[in-house]
Amino acid sequence: MSAPGRPKRELGDASPLVPVLAVVGIGLIGGSFAAALRRAGQVGRVLGVGRRKSSLDRALALGLIDEAVDYAEAARRADLILLATPVGAMRGALEALRPDLRPQALVTDAGSTKSDVAAIAREALGDRVGQFLPGHPIAGSEMTGPEAADPALYQGRKVILTPLDETPAHARAWLTRVWEACGAHVLLMDAERHDRVLASVSHVPHFLAAAYMAQVARAADADLRLSLAGTGFRDFTRIAAGSAEVWRDIFLSNRAAVLDELDAFSRALDELRRTLENDPDPRALEAFLEQAALARRLWDGRSAMT
Amino acid sequence: MSAPGRPKRELGDASPLVPVLAVVGIGLIGGSFAAALRRAGQVGRVLGVGRRKSSLDRALALGLIDEAVDYAEAARRADLILLATPVGAMRGALEALRPDLRPQALVTDAGSTKSDVAAIAREALGDRVGQFLPGHPIAGSEMTGPEAADPALYQGRKVILTPLDETPAHARAWLTRVWEACGAHVLLMDAERHDRVLASVSHVPHFLAAAYMAQVARAADADLRLSLAGTGFRDFTRIAAGSAEVWRDIFLSNRAAVLDELDAFSRALDELRRTLENDPDPRALEAFLEQAALARRLWDGRSAMT
Repeated sequence: MSAPGRPKRELGDASPLVPVLAVVGIGLIGGSFAAALRRAGQVGRVLGVGRRKSSLDRALALGLIDEAVDYAEAARRADLILLATPVGAMRGALEALRPDLRPQALVTDAGSTKSDVAAIAREALGDRVGQFLPGHPIAGSEMTGPEAADPALYQGRKVILTPLDETPAHARAWLTRVWEACGAHVLLMDAERHDRVLASVSHVPHFLAAAYMAQVARAADADLRLSLAGTGFRDFTRIAAGSAEVWRDIFLSNRAAVLDELDAFSRALDELRRTLENDPDPRALEAFLEQAALARRLWDGRSAMT
Repeated sequence: MSAPGRPKRELGDASPLVPVLAVVGIGLIGGSFAAALRRAGQVGRVLGVGRRKSSLDRALALGLIDEAVDYAEAARRADLILLATPVGAMRGALEALRPDLRPQALVTDAGSTKSDVAAIAREALGDRVGQFLPGHPIAGSEMTGPEAADPALYQGRKVILTPLDETPAHARAWLTRVWEACGAHVLLMDAERHDRVLASVSHVPHFLAAAYMAQVARAADADLRLSLAGTGFRDFTRIAAGSAEVWRDIFLSNRAAVLDELDAFSRALDELRRTLENDPDPRALEAFLEQAALARRLWDGRSAMT
């Protein structure tokens, strides 16, 4: 039996990295992955799996996929399978793929939390969990659906892979090359670290923006407040407009790390607040604000370079 | 003695609303006010007062002001005096203007807090406090200095006036017309309400963004976190890059309202947090997030219309 991530077809140097790709969920993330590999000449045939026929028909018409197939056929034919579905749908997808999964196939995902996905994969795949390598492309857009697919979506963006103990080294190396062919920079880390870092820089800002937005909207004079809100308010609250269902799932699946980071935020907020209440300390207040301002300006300069 | 806000010169219908304007502090806010009135043909002569000769020279060269004068001369000649200085400099400015202030002159300001400015004016002007009408144009830019002055800065923006009990009705009406000539929409409210509303939609977001930014920057793995921060993080923290000195003064001068609104925010945060900790309640979590998302999308739609 061949090892996962090492396609059995030997097609020579000119053969694509991924002879047969299957994408479960052909929206922004999955469609862009297929389109990027196609543009790079690194995919042979693209199979699409999805719940809605209308989405699959549009993906076919757009040339994102070559065929619409079911889970069993994707499992029997694909070298690489990307699960571009909400985390809540992954257990079902893995269970549907497992009976027919080729031993040399690799399955990956694009979910925004990783410890829970690893646990789900372990339960759904059992002794074949080494064929699953969790991943998270840090890229997105406000748009959804196959029409939003963009071969340049991953260009210059970061993709985090969180290998399991069971993941063979060559599968890790192969999936890294595949994402690099999409233009992405690949980082490897363990799932716990990924989840803590993402809780910090992505999930907690959303949590705070939602709490803040609801508080303003509930005020007795909310209309007056909102009529006087300017550009600072606009940027600070923008993320609060995101899908409640998507973010509910993210918070629930990364619960422990989000709560830890919220605790750390609350300690910082208390410290800043103490410089203002009772006996205000203008120097400590300014020093705290200056630390935040310098860190933010430094980040701006750094992110402008990448 | 004429009443404040009613220029004694009677020049007929074609005369400008403001025969002689004095601006203390010719930067973005003060320079744009002079430029807007000049473009509208509603100002005769513009006097500039400032600490730094280099700024005054540049304002003269740019045609923003006609003459650089001292406080005494501005007080003796101007019909309207705009204090476009930090709140911390207003007491000194008012004390310097008072001895020579014409009885028919009106003084206003552009500070972002109003209760404290009213109290300062009451102390500095004494029985002439009726000649001071606090104001706050909700407009700004990242740029500073006379070069940043823009006659269109106030176009379509809101300006809040917070009249004192001593403010004559005609002074209120006249200053409203002056700001309208700059293209602004004028709202009247009392200073306490202004300060509470601005604490809510401007000061608290800055406070939270600063606390959050400092917490991330202090983490042991801050570099990794910041390297994985994306566009949500960018928008949520943008305001934290603002001047620490300016924001220190704003928080100190609007302390009570900021602390009250922080309390209200913390109650909302606690409520949202309770849906996630111990015994998570996915429905309540989603309902809270949905309320925030709908409020934010509604605001976007509304603000897009104005």
